[in-house]
Amino acid sequence: MKLNVVQFVLPFFLFALAACDNKKEMNSTKNETEPVFPQGEIITNDNFTGMAYLQPLIAADSLNPIAVGNVTFEPGARSKWHTHPAGQILLVIDGIGYYQEKGQPRKILHKGDAIKCPPNIPHWHGASAESSFVQVAITGREKGETVWMQPVTDEEYYSK
Amino acid sequence: MKLNVVQFVLPFFLFALAACDNKKEMNSTKNETEPVFPQGEIITNDNFTGMAYLQPLIAADSLNPIAVGNVTFEPGARSKWHTHPAGQILLVIDGIGYYQEKGQPRKILHKGDAIKCPPNIPHWHGASAESSFVQVAITGREKGETVWMQPVTDEEYYSK
Repeated sequence: MKLNVVQFVLPFFLFALAACDNKKEMNSTKNETEPVFPQGEIITNDNFTGMAYLQPLIAADSLNPIAVGNVTFEPGARSKWHTHPAGQILLVIDGIGYYQEKGQPRKILHKGDAIKCPPNIPHWHGASAESSFVQVAITGREKGETVWMQPVTDEEYYSK
Repeated sequence: MKLNVVQFVLPFFLFALAACDNKKEMNSTKNETEPVFPQGEIITNDNFTGMAYLQPLIAADSLNPIAVGNVTFEPGARSKWHTHPAGQILLVIDGIGYYQEKGQPRKILHKGDAIKCPPNIPHWHGASAESSFVQVAITGREKGETVWMQPVTDEEYYSK
């Protein structure tokens, strides 16, 4: 009996590789779809440029006036310029983002970074142009609400 | 020419499967070694039972008196009972943990949970018995420092 080796070997080999690729894809998909906090709802107010999502995590109350929320920015999305009367803390959960205070160069933020926005200093934050950005915002509400200002222009957003 | 099919097919098949397992392991290792925040240093004070690690993220200052730190508990590790004069917020970054207020049943915390410890209420938190636990602690320092109390006994820790 004549055996064609290629006919025998190729199907097994391709099957094994396909199974391997499937496993890899499943792992990858699992990682991408399991963020630390839920993405939440699309932000529909006009304080943001582009697509951003908010998942409130903790509401401020009279005993502890700190609010915490998880904000997800799609690539290119950013807040308007704004100030916080009591300041704000940002924790970067995933992705790559930008943060800029008025008159300062734009900073690039990565997963694991933590920064403090001082009270009453105009600033903006958002995703980088190429990557989404997930941040936890920690905001003291004891001195009043966020003061929203003008949009971040493309010129400001893309300046380095 | 006689061909032994098994001799031909098996090496290819085993090679492909081994390559697949390697890829799977590499993905898995990558996930386990890439937490959101660094693990930081072992906590060497006696306010904890078992092994716990602290990575400070934000220091309180006079303008914004909120401190933020990432705490990693190994399985079974937990804080002593304690109170916070201005309360505390916990965000669960990874793993499974426990949280209990005095007189209340122990709660089980999972990745993505966020809870508020009210001011001056004795409580403790830590890892579950079987899983490590990573939390971000957000603590207002404007009313003073944490008040540490007695250790959490095994009876308290294992009670449901």
